[in-house]
Amino acid sequence: MEIIKVFSPATIGNIGPGFDVLGLAIKGLGDVVEARKISSGIVVKANGSKWNVPLNSRENTASIAAQHVLDILGEKGGIEITLTKGLPIGSGLGSSAASAAAGAFAANYLYGNRLSKEELILPATKAEAVVSGGFFADNTAPALLGGATLTRSCEPLDVTRIGSIDALKLVIVIPDLVVLTKDARAILPKFVNLHNFVMNMANTALITAAFSKNDYGLFSRCLNDAIIEPVRSTLIRGYHTVRDKALEAGADGMAISGSGPTLFAITNSMEKAKAIQKAMVQGFKENDVHAESHITEVDREGTRLLPK
Amino acid sequence: MEIIKVFSPATIGNIGPGFDVLGLAIKGLGDVVEARKISSGIVVKANGSKWNVPLNSRENTASIAAQHVLDILGEKGGIEITLTKGLPIGSGLGSSAASAAAGAFAANYLYGNRLSKEELILPATKAEAVVSGGFFADNTAPALLGGATLTRSCEPLDVTRIGSIDALKLVIVIPDLVVLTKDARAILPKFVNLHNFVMNMANTALITAAFSKNDYGLFSRCLNDAIIEPVRSTLIRGYHTVRDKALEAGADGMAISGSGPTLFAITNSMEKAKAIQKAMVQGFKENDVHAESHITEVDREGTRLLPK
Repeated sequence: MEIIKVFSPATIGNIGPGFDVLGLAIKGLGDVVEARKISSGIVVKANGSKWNVPLNSRENTASIAAQHVLDILGEKGGIEITLTKGLPIGSGLGSSAASAAAGAFAANYLYGNRLSKEELILPATKAEAVVSGGFFADNTAPALLGGATLTRSCEPLDVTRIGSIDALKLVIVIPDLVVLTKDARAILPKFVNLHNFVMNMANTALITAAFSKNDYGLFSRCLNDAIIEPVRSTLIRGYHTVRDKALEAGADGMAISGSGPTLFAITNSMEKAKAIQKAMVQGFKENDVHAESHITEVDREGTRLLPK
Repeated sequence: MEIIKVFSPATIGNIGPGFDVLGLAIKGLGDVVEARKISSGIVVKANGSKWNVPLNSRENTASIAAQHVLDILGEKGGIEITLTKGLPIGSGLGSSAASAAAGAFAANYLYGNRLSKEELILPATKAEAVVSGGFFADNTAPALLGGATLTRSCEPLDVTRIGSIDALKLVIVIPDLVVLTKDARAILPKFVNLHNFVMNMANTALITAAFSKNDYGLFSRCLNDAIIEPVRSTLIRGYHTVRDKALEAGADGMAISGSGPTLFAITNSMEKAKAIQKAMVQGFKENDVHAESHITEVDREGTRLLPK
């Protein structure tokens, strides 16, 4: 029986000011699903993960997404999934979305490959919603499509590929802190003042132009969120120290990835990226927080088959 | 003495959801400034306008902008301006911005052409602010640069050219109604709920992507403002009738131009544009409002020298 191997990248929800709208796939971090057809049912196994991966197929986003895809395709057969987590759960890097995207992709591929990646966004997003408690495509869409994506609406789903920025270096810092998505949602403001609304809208539109035009210079000016970050940053110990240090070290901006606690900073220089990485990790350390860090770039491809 | 002739186009502020951020230059309607150097002072004349053009050089945006430009250039000489208004004052089509852009361009051209169009935005916007009472570049920037522009911030001024959409046809309907900019500002909500904030931000980002990528299909899906238009539409008699008729006639969207009362609808078909134009004018007529109308497209060039 054919065994396939699927990779799905980590993603940065919001890209700063674009709350619930923008998302970006990044290289290096991601989940791998090995999958094969079985006669019926969905089986999930975990491949030596240091994170606590749920092995009940109704709780794992990879298997839930795979089941949704089989339902769409009208297939009665089953699938066995072995999940290798390559990014931490609950970090704000779209961990459950990556698993969901990989599971959806694998099921579609094994059963005739009749759905486009765009058509896999809905089942993957439904699967992620079971775990995250909210129906949002700002991680599943970029995880599947690659590059930056814009979600205009979730019901009905309306997602647009925006593009990429070749010169962009991303410094990803994952502190050893827990921020529950439901806490990060509960803390959101219910109302926004008109001035901040205009400012976030302008920054998000400019980021969209930057990814559309592959223009790092535009992006470097507008990674600033006046609305959500001021409240969510209170859930991340050391946030202000780390931000100050990132900017001092030459970052053109820094923001929370998704609902956190992961932070990301941007630059177009590998030399600066290394200095920023060091400074940010040091900033957490000064607040007694251990942090893992990576320098990476945009993943343009999204979820894909890996060579066996 | 050399006499030059400068044209500056009408503009659509906001482009629907992009309040105070987006602006678009359109063909056909606009102001013409004829100008020549004089030894000192600024003189303004009006060329047979049916609108009430202020002839005091401290009240006319063309002459105020020209004076600002001479100040920037450190020139002691003067300028004589003859203004031919080609678009109605107070209509929401950037009338005072067009005059300001033309005045600024003329002064710069006559005195050595040392400033770029980008550098003319600030003096033109300052001039417009004298008349409009607010410092906003969403009309002056597209009037000068052409196409769609994105204003991220006014102080300091931060404007980006976005691009154009070749297939776009705009139906412009100018009702014989008065909406004062100060009333249109006073009626604005002070706070915005989070859901509407996200919706307007997504639509504005998608419009930005559409103009960046020259993609009418994207634009056609997102000309929708959940925040400002619901309140400002109450100042425009017949708005709902006209909107319903525009959409019935095949428009892909309709919105208020700037602070109104002009409305514009979008399509990519000239045949539909004609039907939409007729339907919108009829909609105002049913509300006892006379309306002037035009079918036009994007002006990609912005303010420019005309042949003599």
